[in-house]
Amino acid sequence: MSLDLDRYLVISSDGHAGLPMEDYREYVDPRFRDAFDAALPIQRAMTESAAKSFLIADINEEWRKGIEDDLAGAWDSDARNRVVDADGVTAEVLFPDGVTEMNAPPFGAGFSLGTQGTTKELQWAGCDAHNRWLSEFVSQAPERRIGLACIPVLWDIDLAVEGIRRAHEDGLRGVVFPPMWGEFAPYHHSRYNPVWEVCQDLDMPIHFHSGPSPIQDYFGPMPPKEGQEINQGAVGIYICEVAIWLARPVTFMLWGGVFENHPRLKVALVEGTGIWVPEYLQLLEQRYSDSHYSMKLGDYRSHLSMSPADYFKRNVRIGASCMPRREADMRNEIGVGTIMWGTDYPHPEGSWPHTKDQLKETFHDLPEQDIAAMLGENAVSFYNLDVEKLAPIVARIGPEKATFQQ
Amino acid sequence: MSLDLDRYLVISSDGHAGLPMEDYREYVDPRFRDAFDAALPIQRAMTESAAKSFLIADINEEWRKGIEDDLAGAWDSDARNRVVDADGVTAEVLFPDGVTEMNAPPFGAGFSLGTQGTTKELQWAGCDAHNRWLSEFVSQAPERRIGLACIPVLWDIDLAVEGIRRAHEDGLRGVVFPPMWGEFAPYHHSRYNPVWEVCQDLDMPIHFHSGPSPIQDYFGPMPPKEGQEINQGAVGIYICEVAIWLARPVTFMLWGGVFENHPRLKVALVEGTGIWVPEYLQLLEQRYSDSHYSMKLGDYRSHLSMSPADYFKRNVRIGASCMPRREADMRNEIGVGTIMWGTDYPHPEGSWPHTKDQLKETFHDLPEQDIAAMLGENAVSFYNLDVEKLAPIVARIGPEKATFQQ
Repeated sequence: MSLDLDRYLVISSDGHAGLPMEDYREYVDPRFRDAFDAALPIQRAMTESAAKSFLIADINEEWRKGIEDDLAGAWDSDARNRVVDADGVTAEVLFPDGVTEMNAPPFGAGFSLGTQGTTKELQWAGCDAHNRWLSEFVSQAPERRIGLACIPVLWDIDLAVEGIRRAHEDGLRGVVFPPMWGEFAPYHHSRYNPVWEVCQDLDMPIHFHSGPSPIQDYFGPMPPKEGQEINQGAVGIYICEVAIWLARPVTFMLWGGVFENHPRLKVALVEGTGIWVPEYLQLLEQRYSDSHYSMKLGDYRSHLSMSPADYFKRNVRIGASCMPRREADMRNEIGVGTIMWGTDYPHPEGSWPHTKDQLKETFHDLPEQDIAAMLGENAVSFYNLDVEKLAPIVARIGPEKATFQQ
Repeated sequence: MSLDLDRYLVISSDGHAGLPMEDYREYVDPRFRDAFDAALPIQRAMTESAAKSFLIADINEEWRKGIEDDLAGAWDSDARNRVVDADGVTAEVLFPDGVTEMNAPPFGAGFSLGTQGTTKELQWAGCDAHNRWLSEFVSQAPERRIGLACIPVLWDIDLAVEGIRRAHEDGLRGVVFPPMWGEFAPYHHSRYNPVWEVCQDLDMPIHFHSGPSPIQDYFGPMPPKEGQEINQGAVGIYICEVAIWLARPVTFMLWGGVFENHPRLKVALVEGTGIWVPEYLQLLEQRYSDSHYSMKLGDYRSHLSMSPADYFKRNVRIGASCMPRREADMRNEIGVGTIMWGTDYPHPEGSWPHTKDQLKETFHDLPEQDIAAMLGENAVSFYNLDVEKLAPIVARIGPEKATFQQ
């Protein structure tokens, strides 16, 4: 069976799935269950406090009223299928942190994978618990669910390599790494070579998801002095520079020669917008080719046989969550083959439950082959998907191509 | 006397001046002379070691051969005038760190103003020494020299305000602040309000100069393990993200409401290229006006009566050192009124001694009024210069307009 020629194959490069916090208990290694019981109320309190200072709980709660059944798709297989069917989405890439703050895995697991306030043992225990559950969730609809394993890669390279192999055996099809390395070595360090090796060998794409950034900079040193407001505009700064922190690992990998040495390694940068990509490519190209500017800085290029901009085009993809029309209009500068559209379900900033309308708003009147690439075909290549298995779903729920022409 | 209509007024927004290290001794407060004597050999050794790991000493030394007399323009008034005359430059903005590593002021003064390895007292002593010397240097050709005081603003706000007032009295016409704040409060913090106030009142533009960045990230944790090369591509990463670190203070100031509350405050971002500006403005605009994306993050806008992109256009200028043609072609997106061209003399990556040729390469065949704005008029407004005093110099050494038309 081949694809329905009248409908688009839509693959979301950015979905989230996770259990309600307390339900992770049975997936946690018994050795860490006491720690889990002790940590649960603390995690809940910290989550609520973070929500108060950074997220507007009211909006989240307001938004969730009356759609609780659909949000259960974060962990309930039938609900998930019903919701993505209605959205016209055939398959999804699954990150952790389902309904944002309500579904974080324990012990500092999740897509941020920050190393503050946790330990190697605990963070791995949290990741293992999530990855175990996710494997089950994926197995309930394996053709539609591209599950990503949380891998806290910074602590220990041997553990990371082992964890990636295990995730692959368990049916997960990619990994999530932390975009910020804190006190650990950045991603151009040769200690990560075995990790790049195993990801390339097993064809497990690496994902960095937008979110982490140095929020202590935005909120400043605490406590503020008497009468001084210190964090005015903090959130504006955050949303302005969060994409910079997302792209940083790739800057280090590109110049570090990671894609020179691992030409089939794949990396996705997810929910960080695409508007920075054209200027970033231009900068990489200039910095690689300009000699006068940097002659006094010595040789930083001879270990690279291609321009870093060309590695980017070959090895890196953008998870374009809820991409607006203005970015679709920049598709040739970003790279039509680089963009993988996504919904961000079940997050409130995502396109769900209005995905079909938003798709038309973003893609109307563009060339059919460009739409098809950005909505699904690029993801098919990136994740090496079997289109035959997706075809019946597309025929049933895929958005009709004709509706994209005004 | 008005400007020669056949010649351009050229003002370099990026010049460097400073004494040979040892010659700062007599400008250092006597209380710190013993410390100066003790620190000098250490500073020399550290400078040489930094030059080995980061700068290619050979190229610098090679480049300097035979032009020693002209490089003395870093501190010698007559040599300076001779050199800039020959380059067609009428006036210059003067940063510290003359011939890069050979002329750094003592005790961690300089344009980086990093706070590591120094103290409040020492860094201020170093800045005061440089500022004292610079006042003398400026007084030898006051109409041509826009001297900038080094102000280590992070440590102590009262000291900073006092230092800015003193610099103004001594004939300096702007200040240099550190682009990285380390463990101190970032620039949206209300503790800096008195600083913004005095800079606005005295019309002392604030300058951030490209250079500082988290180099420990590039070179990684030391020492590396056996057989592991850790810093491959480090310099490529550095030159790719150095402009990000330069722009960061402005991101914090924009969202923090600094320009809302100080509408006449002026900031220049120098030698950080201009190619990032169009996308940065677009991002500021989107983040200010998009509501769906950030609704869950609460109100971060109501303290701003304008879009941050509009503050940028009004209050911020780009010191466009050795701007290439490709950026001149982007002038409308960057802002013709935003660009202030510069030579970076006497640094080897600068346009000197080929400034006249480079000017033609960058600006040939552009509208005369655009060239005039970017080469000089924008700086006249920014620094509130007296064109009458500059006119005789322009008539004598300014590049002829006709030579910019092919």
